[in-house]
Amino acid sequence: MDSSGHIFRVTTFGESHGVAVGGVIEGCPSGLTIDHQFIADELARRATGKTSSESQRRESDEVEFLSGLLDGVTLGTPIAFIVRNTDARPEDYEAMKGTFRPSHADYTYQAKYGIRDWRGGGRASARTMLPYVVAGAIAKQILKPQGIEIHVEVKSIGGETDPSRIEALLKECRFKGDTVGGIVHGSITGLPAGLGEPQDDKFQACLAKSMFTIPAVKGFEYGDGFAMAAMRGTEANDRMSINNDGTVTFLSNHSGGIQGGITNGEEVFFNVAFKPIPSLGMGARHDVCALPRAVVIVEAMAALTIVRLSSLTRNTYLI
Amino acid sequence: MDSSGHIFRVTTFGESHGVAVGGVIEGCPSGLTIDHQFIADELARRATGKTSSESQRRESDEVEFLSGLLDGVTLGTPIAFIVRNTDARPEDYEAMKGTFRPSHADYTYQAKYGIRDWRGGGRASARTMLPYVVAGAIAKQILKPQGIEIHVEVKSIGGETDPSRIEALLKECRFKGDTVGGIVHGSITGLPAGLGEPQDDKFQACLAKSMFTIPAVKGFEYGDGFAMAAMRGTEANDRMSINNDGTVTFLSNHSGGIQGGITNGEEVFFNVAFKPIPSLGMGARHDVCALPRAVVIVEAMAALTIVRLSSLTRNTYLI
Amino acid sequence: MDSSGHIFRVTTFGESHGVAVGGVIEGCPSGLTIDHQFIADELARRATGKTSSESQRRESDEVEFLSGLLDGVTLGTPIAFIVRNTDARPEDYEAMKGTFRPSHADYTYQAKYGIRDWRGGGRASARTMLPYVVAGAIAKQILKPQGIEIHVEVKSIGGETDPSRIEALLKECRFKGDTVGGIVHGSITGLPAGLGEPQDDKFQACLAKSMFTIPAVKGFEYGDGFAMAAMRGTEANDRMSINNDGTVTFLSNHSGGIQGGITNGEEVFFNVAFKPIPSLGMGARHDVCALPRAVVIVEAMAALTIVRLSSLTRNTYLI
Amino acid sequence: MDSSGHIFRVTTFGESHGVAVGGVIEGCPSGLTIDHQFIADELARRATGKTSSESQRRESDEVEFLSGLLDGVTLGTPIAFIVRNTDARPEDYEAMKGTFRPSHADYTYQAKYGIRDWRGGGRASARTMLPYVVAGAIAKQILKPQGIEIHVEVKSIGGETDPSRIEALLKECRFKGDTVGGIVHGSITGLPAGLGEPQDDKFQACLAKSMFTIPAVKGFEYGDGFAMAAMRGTEANDRMSINNDGTVTFLSNHSGGIQGGITNGEEVFFNVAFKPIPSLGMGARHDVCALPRAVVIVEAMAALTIVRLSSLTRNTYLI
Repeated sequence: MDSSGHIFRVTTFGESHGVAVGGVIEGCPSGLTIDHQFIADELARRATGKTSSESQRRESDEVEFLSGLLDGVTLGTPIAFIVRNTDARPEDYEAMKGTFRPSHADYTYQAKYGIRDWRGGGRASARTMLPYVVAGAIAKQILKPQGIEIHVEVKSIGGETDPSRIEALLKECRFKGDTVGGIVHGSITGLPAGLGEPQDDKFQACLAKSMFTIPAVKGFEYGDGFAMAAMRGTEANDRMSINNDGTVTFLSNHSGGIQGGITNGEEVFFNVAFKPIPSLGMGARHDVCALPRAVVIVEAMAALTIVRLSSLTRNTYLI
Repeated sequence: MDSSGHIFRVTTFGESHGVAVGGVIEGCPSGLTIDHQFIADELARRATGKTSSESQRRESDEVEFLSGLLDGVTLGTPIAFIVRNTDARPEDYEAMKGTFRPSHADYTYQAKYGIRDWRGGGRASARTMLPYVVAGAIAKQILKPQGIEIHVEVKSIGGETDPSRIEALLKECRFKGDTVGGIVHGSITGLPAGLGEPQDDKFQACLAKSMFTIPAVKGFEYGDGFAMAAMRGTEANDRMSINNDGTVTFLSNHSGGIQGGITNGEEVFFNVAFKPIPSLGMGARHDVCALPRAVVIVEAMAALTIVRLSSLTRNTYLI
Repeated sequence: MDSSGHIFRVTTFGESHGVAVGGVIEGCPSGLTIDHQFIADELARRATGKTSSESQRRESDEVEFLSGLLDGVTLGTPIAFIVRNTDARPEDYEAMKGTFRPSHADYTYQAKYGIRDWRGGGRASARTMLPYVVAGAIAKQILKPQGIEIHVEVKSIGGETDPSRIEALLKECRFKGDTVGGIVHGSITGLPAGLGEPQDDKFQACLAKSMFTIPAVKGFEYGDGFAMAAMRGTEANDRMSINNDGTVTFLSNHSGGIQGGITNGEEVFFNVAFKPIPSLGMGARHDVCALPRAVVIVEAMAALTIVRLSSLTRNTYLI
Repeated sequence: MDSSGHIFRVTTFGESHGVAVGGVIEGCPSGLTIDHQFIADELARRATGKTSSESQRRESDEVEFLSGLLDGVTLGTPIAFIVRNTDARPEDYEAMKGTFRPSHADYTYQAKYGIRDWRGGGRASARTMLPYVVAGAIAKQILKPQGIEIHVEVKSIGGETDPSRIEALLKECRFKGDTVGGIVHGSITGLPAGLGEPQDDKFQACLAKSMFTIPAVKGFEYGDGFAMAAMRGTEANDRMSINNDGTVTFLSNHSGGIQGGITNGEEVFFNVAFKPIPSLGMGARHDVCALPRAVVIVEAMAALTIVRLSSLTRNTYLI
């Protein structure tokens, strides 16, 4: 006997050079006025790797909402939306048809399905993350009034953390037709204590699953992460003091805001490692590094994870 | 309209010092003769951190199967099993009742539920992984005849990889009442190409979620992992050659056997980082380092992940 | 991206003459003091077909709780419980081993799994409903303080509604070694408006699914049910008046308290049809009619359905 | 630890007078050539209540596929499709805005969500079944080569079974501005033995849930259904003979092809009761009776149920 119902379940679809990419959000609360400008700004961050203030928005990614809204307000019913692939140029990819590109999903899709959409990576393209950015923008709208903020930024590229050296590195790669990996750092503040389930849906487990859904992600750590493997318990433990009013003050946060799979009210922070983009020598139309455009995707996936888990936090009777 | 049915869905239950820990496996294939000795050996690895050949087995963790078997053969119906907590000594933990131990889940459970089982960590105890070891042993029995093998070993403890230096480190911690973290390395061989789903259930995403379900895990990486963040595409790409018979030979495996979320038939390898055990100064009865006993848990979680994903691999019509 | 977490998800297990039957409840709210006497009373209703005041309780069905409780109070973690099959007499069924009994599940289990537990119906036995009675008793404890009551009673047996004619019919069947079917009527009062989901989890769809999980159930109708197929719209429609305070008063209830899959606050009522028990000529140890003992099962399945759906009713933001 | 993956999971969306209705099919097998003409024919049956040979097709319901196909062949990835609501005339419904129509979902949606799409029933409209017809047409394409056929027909309308008396009844209702209910009879042939799960997903339970998802359905019975409640076991039991080759021949089929929740290889047959359409006095543009157009919806829901359950039938090891 299953649990029924779907709280902010996101179903996505679409191939990179098919008709459209899109998604369906089930279980979005009713009465929310969708902020279309904010969604457009988030899509511009994905399209350009820049914030809306830094760049003229690329207008090509236009979202059409198909259901779930009345005069821009959510009805509580499934919200479907699509973005048409207007920029699709399958002829650019004709050469891919008969070959398997290195470190792409061409071979694995062929092995799994006996058929694949060879046009620009098909379902494996990073463009398939676009619907998560739309859904994530709506999730952020739900989280923001609760004081929950998600901030992700590039931490290092090609092992470099210094902005000018990173700039030089990207220039060099662009010149050589090479690409480069990197690490983004994420921070979630304002979370209440109590998010996450003890066993099957630990907060960090759900967050990790979301992050490894993003193409090119090879590693995830939270709190002090891999560095904790070299620590002693006396260094790693987060002591706390109990205040007069019964609340708790943590004296450190090596744990990254989660203990036993459940948030403790401190900042949740994490790192996500990306491998270099496998498409080499592609010239101007393609990225040299996934990270600038991935930042908003990582934020979106985090926002979706939080909203879904938040539906389970109340310690109250069910009706 | 949901997909129905459950393939090897594992539901676990139990607190560390409650009556029992246990689990229910739904969707196990019928006709499998359970290897009880193998399950006992795996439980001994969990209990002692040693293989059955190295240690006299601790007999306390005795599994009782309650359903799903007839004369030791699986019926296809849910397999329930329990292990009673015979060794429970709640009085040892009486002092925990009124306090929150640093870097434990005491506070987060209290915040979430308004109540907690304060006896030895309750549901947050590492003992709650025991049912996964039992289910994982059955999963391994399914995988082995297919040539799929999972091997996990300690890679480093406290930053050390040299066995004698590790031994010295553990001795020092035991003496000081301190604890230490570490990294385990996992390897899965014999996997067919085609396991994993393109978007929602990528192989690495499901594997990561399973790993972050294990207490004390702070990081997960697969293939060359975090190191790829410092690589160029020219270094990181896995080239392949197509053989005369149409099969493919990969010339390197930086990817770790997965592309686009789907296995490519190469070895899947990964690292899992553990923080130090937060219980300090506990003396002989407690571990100084989680890793020796965690190895079999990591293997079990990997086995369960593979079996569940394998139910979706067939590219055939449904009936 | 799935919705996470499980609200009052019940996983059951057990064969009729195996070691035990039992269940695991995930997502039960914490802080609930389990009423063990009430559970025992409900089990007695299932065992004897009588209320606890009418009969001496049969003590054989003793529930052992294995997890999820501290001093009888729910922790919010999975609640596992078992009832051992002390009365198992597999030798009574030795003759079943090589045969398929008419209108039993012997053949279909064999066809599906290639193996079956031939002892007393195995997983197909009505005894496998016992765990739902336990879980349902806990669900009722959650519903009662909200004013939600479920009442099920026998409506007809063998087509008869008159108690003395029913008594005569049962006597005749017992004498002839025959069995007989019947209909139970269920009523749910005190439900708020707003339970049930528009499409995938309509209230009546979830209720129907629950009812058809009970062995021997052949039909389900709600509101005026099959009789509405012969009605005109002018007869069938439920008009309502809007009160001065904005509330609504329904002037009739042909709909049975549900419109568009969502409760309207009126009584939900329904009928469930049972076929005759297929085991004939079994004598004193077996029932002549399933209905008296099925009443509490129907109530339990309704209670579980309501609790699960109730977790989705709040029209509020998620945090 | 959940089972992963989705076999033919259908997510639908759309309001009657919103932009579009549509759906996403996850887990459709790859390599299937979509029969667009068949889908159009099925949609014409839904739109007109007539088979394509009887009627000129209404061309308004044009399906646009957005993903999951390459040159008309399924890729194994999610198949999204939409049908735009070109015929939407919200101004026809302006009067509904401030009122709750009797026996409609207007009130219950308002109670649940605090907002509703008042235009033509919104999400509660029968038009929201359209995506199931599309998905069902694809499901039928999967089932047909396996020899599985689903046939649904009108059994009675307003209690009448005689075609000429039904014709007269419909005429009378049309004249009076009244509506009328009825019963459809469904038959599924060619099913293998072994479909359906023992407890949580019994074949009849999944079929019933699907049927009660259709608007206006008030009752469901299978096999001899409610009539079995008046039978004795000696009448109701289905005896079988075992053939020389070990196969089984059933001598009757009161059970309706299912025992213990699992198909036995005989015909599955069932009845579904519809209440009268609640919209009265609507004139030419609306139906007097839902049944002629519901027939193809019932078939679609049955086809979807079978395909989903069929993914679980194999009694084989998982890889």
